[in-house]
Amino acid sequence: MTTPPIPGKRKGKWPVAVLGATGAVGQMFVRLLADHPWFELVEVAASERSAGKKYGEATRWLEGAPPPQAVQNRRVIACDPGVVSAPIVFSALDATVAGEVEMAFAKAGKFVLSNAKNFRMEPDVPLVIPEVNGDHLALIECQRQRRGWSGAIVTNANCSATVAALALAPLHQKFGIRQLFLSTMQAVSGAGYPGVPSLDILGNVIPYIADEEPKLEHEMLKLLGTYEDGEVTSAMFKVSAHTNRVPVEHGHTICMTIGFEEKPTPESAIETMRSWQGFPATRGLPTSPEHPLVVTDAPDRPQPKRDVNAGDGMTVTVGRVRRDVVLDLRMVALGHNTVRGAAGGSVLNAELLASNGALDSA
Amino acid sequence: MTTPPIPGKRKGKWPVAVLGATGAVGQMFVRLLADHPWFELVEVAASERSAGKKYGEATRWLEGAPPPQAVQNRRVIACDPGVVSAPIVFSALDATVAGEVEMAFAKAGKFVLSNAKNFRMEPDVPLVIPEVNGDHLALIECQRQRRGWSGAIVTNANCSATVAALALAPLHQKFGIRQLFLSTMQAVSGAGYPGVPSLDILGNVIPYIADEEPKLEHEMLKLLGTYEDGEVTSAMFKVSAHTNRVPVEHGHTICMTIGFEEKPTPESAIETMRSWQGFPATRGLPTSPEHPLVVTDAPDRPQPKRDVNAGDGMTVTVGRVRRDVVLDLRMVALGHNTVRGAAGGSVLNAELLASNGALDSA
Amino acid sequence: MTTPPIPGKRKGKWPVAVLGATGAVGQMFVRLLADHPWFELVEVAASERSAGKKYGEATRWLEGAPPPQAVQNRRVIACDPGVVSAPIVFSALDATVAGEVEMAFAKAGKFVLSNAKNFRMEPDVPLVIPEVNGDHLALIECQRQRRGWSGAIVTNANCSATVAALALAPLHQKFGIRQLFLSTMQAVSGAGYPGVPSLDILGNVIPYIADEEPKLEHEMLKLLGTYEDGEVTSAMFKVSAHTNRVPVEHGHTICMTIGFEEKPTPESAIETMRSWQGFPATRGLPTSPEHPLVVTDAPDRPQPKRDVNAGDGMTVTVGRVRRDVVLDLRMVALGHNTVRGAAGGSVLNAELLASNGALDSA
Amino acid sequence: MTTPPIPGKRKGKWPVAVLGATGAVGQMFVRLLADHPWFELVEVAASERSAGKKYGEATRWLEGAPPPQAVQNRRVIACDPGVVSAPIVFSALDATVAGEVEMAFAKAGKFVLSNAKNFRMEPDVPLVIPEVNGDHLALIECQRQRRGWSGAIVTNANCSATVAALALAPLHQKFGIRQLFLSTMQAVSGAGYPGVPSLDILGNVIPYIADEEPKLEHEMLKLLGTYEDGEVTSAMFKVSAHTNRVPVEHGHTICMTIGFEEKPTPESAIETMRSWQGFPATRGLPTSPEHPLVVTDAPDRPQPKRDVNAGDGMTVTVGRVRRDVVLDLRMVALGHNTVRGAAGGSVLNAELLASNGALDSA
Repeated sequence: MTTPPIPGKRKGKWPVAVLGATGAVGQMFVRLLADHPWFELVEVAASERSAGKKYGEATRWLEGAPPPQAVQNRRVIACDPGVVSAPIVFSALDATVAGEVEMAFAKAGKFVLSNAKNFRMEPDVPLVIPEVNGDHLALIECQRQRRGWSGAIVTNANCSATVAALALAPLHQKFGIRQLFLSTMQAVSGAGYPGVPSLDILGNVIPYIADEEPKLEHEMLKLLGTYEDGEVTSAMFKVSAHTNRVPVEHGHTICMTIGFEEKPTPESAIETMRSWQGFPATRGLPTSPEHPLVVTDAPDRPQPKRDVNAGDGMTVTVGRVRRDVVLDLRMVALGHNTVRGAAGGSVLNAELLASNGALDSA
Repeated sequence: MTTPPIPGKRKGKWPVAVLGATGAVGQMFVRLLADHPWFELVEVAASERSAGKKYGEATRWLEGAPPPQAVQNRRVIACDPGVVSAPIVFSALDATVAGEVEMAFAKAGKFVLSNAKNFRMEPDVPLVIPEVNGDHLALIECQRQRRGWSGAIVTNANCSATVAALALAPLHQKFGIRQLFLSTMQAVSGAGYPGVPSLDILGNVIPYIADEEPKLEHEMLKLLGTYEDGEVTSAMFKVSAHTNRVPVEHGHTICMTIGFEEKPTPESAIETMRSWQGFPATRGLPTSPEHPLVVTDAPDRPQPKRDVNAGDGMTVTVGRVRRDVVLDLRMVALGHNTVRGAAGGSVLNAELLASNGALDSA
Repeated sequence: MTTPPIPGKRKGKWPVAVLGATGAVGQMFVRLLADHPWFELVEVAASERSAGKKYGEATRWLEGAPPPQAVQNRRVIACDPGVVSAPIVFSALDATVAGEVEMAFAKAGKFVLSNAKNFRMEPDVPLVIPEVNGDHLALIECQRQRRGWSGAIVTNANCSATVAALALAPLHQKFGIRQLFLSTMQAVSGAGYPGVPSLDILGNVIPYIADEEPKLEHEMLKLLGTYEDGEVTSAMFKVSAHTNRVPVEHGHTICMTIGFEEKPTPESAIETMRSWQGFPATRGLPTSPEHPLVVTDAPDRPQPKRDVNAGDGMTVTVGRVRRDVVLDLRMVALGHNTVRGAAGGSVLNAELLASNGALDSA
Repeated sequence: MTTPPIPGKRKGKWPVAVLGATGAVGQMFVRLLADHPWFELVEVAASERSAGKKYGEATRWLEGAPPPQAVQNRRVIACDPGVVSAPIVFSALDATVAGEVEMAFAKAGKFVLSNAKNFRMEPDVPLVIPEVNGDHLALIECQRQRRGWSGAIVTNANCSATVAALALAPLHQKFGIRQLFLSTMQAVSGAGYPGVPSLDILGNVIPYIADEEPKLEHEMLKLLGTYEDGEVTSAMFKVSAHTNRVPVEHGHTICMTIGFEEKPTPESAIETMRSWQGFPATRGLPTSPEHPLVVTDAPDRPQPKRDVNAGDGMTVTVGRVRRDVVLDLRMVALGHNTVRGAAGGSVLNAELLASNGALDSA
């Protein structure tokens, strides 16, 4: 695959920083940005405790090969807009601090690509999965006007909401969802590190994840909403979720039962998902997978162990599309929670901003 | 706890046999019957391959302490009504053979307490969870008349159906279920031994269990149906299920979303489940737990690892009872799939038959 | 089994307290003491953070049924000898605080049954597994004289050292160990709660446990040492250990390769372990298992899942006793790390003290 | 990395076949050969049961993306030298049939690269890890003369023996091993598919793998032996192994304690492993990793989850190199059991044969 050239008239890559770089999602950002064709990772920022240390020493690298030596040797700096020079920052900050810090960065003129929940449901903050609702990025203008910021905050969605929304977007666009029941089986990496104690989850299921059900229910409607004249109108269907933690490392599996305005057959639903292209401007972006959505015919897929890395973790796999006796359709979706559902989603958001010129001022 | 005396005028225990005694469920039967106050395990029967061997040698004991030496030394005999002398047999046979074998035993005058799916949905065969629909045992009379059998077949339900039905029975009786969505997370022991290969399930979820969803949907309606004049009329609500396999040893966890004729609040639903007594004749039976149904207030329970052995595996634990935005209620139920959902359920069925005099002729 | 009567002339049970009662080992103490025939759990003490709360609210109960309501309602008090009234305390304190706190209690006249590592290797502090070296309790006298304490500290050993020492004691006593290689596979509960993050151990092995190898090597020699004239002389053989963490909930499995002064055959080693009785005074104590050591003939045992609860967690199971081509014998031992290897071991130590009159002054 | 050109004067790739292509190791062969620069996978052979079906239908693909459509569409043929046309065959056959079938292929003039144990210890059959003892391939000449075969059998070693031998080869060559203690923790994929039942291994350790310890002990000595004048003289040190199964998907972890003729310090051992190049002819082969052996300084590595894919599964990672109090050194090695320890090892053997001209006649 040829690497897409840096968009616009820009010479050289955009300098970027990661906030909260030592945690689980922060590490994923560093991995995805270490060799990015458009972005140059110039700074890693984290809490006081890590600031001043070398990144490689401050970080307990959770998986795969460690990052390049140059990145490991970088000094961790503070999450302070006066200290971070990069005009674009990816935030893997914890919700307890993300609110204040991200706002300070946006005020200081930075583009903040946030993985935190704090601003997701603000009416003037884009909550974006590029293929699903890339046009919602236009909210940035209102955000800046309204708040008087020279920078901006763009958020990606909760990991389960992301997986479900990617599977449902084509169906909603064509058939109109009326009712949606979700039951998730979520990987432990969704809880960060150290996250879920092994004594709680080895050989066990925990049928509860704090705050997860409301997030899933609300974000879904904003993601599938429509943008017009500086405003996003949320989708109007009803959503009901059960969220569960299971002993899986990566990959959220979501059982869905769906009622529609217009009744699709399983075959037409499959055809609709398979032929879906998503928001056109996302095609060909560096982190964009060849297929954002794949429908499998195997009777027992998708499975986290076998499908989570489809499209380098950016593809959502759907299977078991079948008729439902109460509503209309049942199906199962699976996606990588820390790639598509977290760091990868934010990077793709930044790429979409870059390709449409929004970062030219950065 | 005092042991309930053998009911009726009977002197001594009833002699019983286990068919398919070497498998996972068979072993559980042997464990439960090894020291039973009313039943004496006099024979263990299994396939040709095992017949003639000592039970202890023919069996790969899957958990806990092995059975008493006397049981281990017993010779395995064939699953043949001409060879088995006991008038009461517990069947842990695989569905591929259970149909013919169980029929032969019933024809030959034996009481067959079956764990297999083959006869469950026959109109004249009781499908029974004692606390839920113990009165359905009256179907035995029709069965004998219609089929000309001197024996009888009584079945227990699919393991997930059992757990769900126990949780739902009090609510259905009081509020009338209209719609039911289920999403299960089922333990590997539900697939028997060797069952699920470790390469398929370690760190994984399989969103498919062959034939499980129809079983769960159909059996639920028969279990919650009503008996009158020699006939069971199934409940009429709609059921829709997702069934999933998770890396848990024992215990099926079931997320449920429920719509009712009369809308209960979460509080009234909890009160209804907590005050439910179930079919009165089951109280005090040897295998009957003090509480067939327990509702926990903990926000993150029930969990298989922590709740599966409640009531020695015979209690179903319900938690997270909460309002639903689409239908009326959401909640999670958990039960032991090889005890309450298999061998323990059959033994309790036999105890109910014993206590109501049905076994007096055996 | 009949309950052994309270020893000596004492009327009524001894009042006891648990220090560090909210943690994983603390909970196990509470479970074992909740219904103890000789000890009455009158106080639960923990850190500042918990003090003042009800025990049931301060504690995230990790497994099984929660403790009796009376215990749950007890107010947590501070780990301060001025606040704790019970003359006997079981310490599940973390090593970071155990040193000072336990010393303060001993100084204040309390009997401290400690599960912490801090005092284990002190020459005047008994490090005891009752069946192995119950006679070492006599060190208490020296301890009191030397330190001027009216109370005393008695320690139990590291969990892996306990399992290994129980298996090796009969062999060392008869054949004299010269060289010992150990390779452990240790359960996550050994690291307490929250302990090992699931992201570190799901589907993984960690070939390192901080400080564990030296503990195992040193404590083993003290445990198998000899008491004479107020002094324990450590055993003199060489020990070398690898310690590993595996995704198992409870039960440490230890592969051992052993060289002896006098060469036993596998048969004579098995016979020696099977006929071993251990320190006579421990037989019949309330927590003493019928068999402290069991040797299995099954080719693939012991296994944590299947053998960890032998003797209610107080029995060590040995298997695969076979000749070694380099040294003399190879074998595998398994024991419950939080029962025999922690709380249960301390309780048994206390029972031995009670039965030999040492607690009469308490 | 540039692809090494096909060696010798050969035009085009060598046609190759896989025997036992549908099983776990067979699938790994197919994956590794699907896009190989020197070998063209032209045939897939398996048991009667699969013969005639399309490969994609006969195979339950165990992990990752399925093979290219062209491979999936290939018809499975019989494991019969009269049916298989390729002159080079990779055998993933089960030991129960490998003996006869592999011999028939060798007799019929085929080069058999075998993963089965049957011929490994035959004096005239090379048992080869290219970097360790690539020169042993010279045994082929004797084999052909002695057996009158126009083809040949070359074997790779048991998966644990392979991992251990790669770590030990540099140390043995420099310091001379005298005594070796091994304790393994082996992944479930080593047992093939369906292999280990989940009920046996979830949350468990099985301290026994049938026949594994003798294989490990004997093969190690042949692997580290020396070739001279048509004969391999085994190394003469003593080996003693414990082999254990753990709930890990891929990656065998091996704890080793080693005594040497000349005592290395940990530092000199590390330096020796780090500077080791292995048998020179293996460098630059297509499947040869940049570093066959890596030594990590991290205190808690190697770990299967984090290190198994080093060098695309062909690198063995060693860690925790430290002094031993009984012998001389302790360390831990980890390698990918189905890549380096199985299919990848065989492919590397074939590449070495290709590069030294041995396949020119094929």
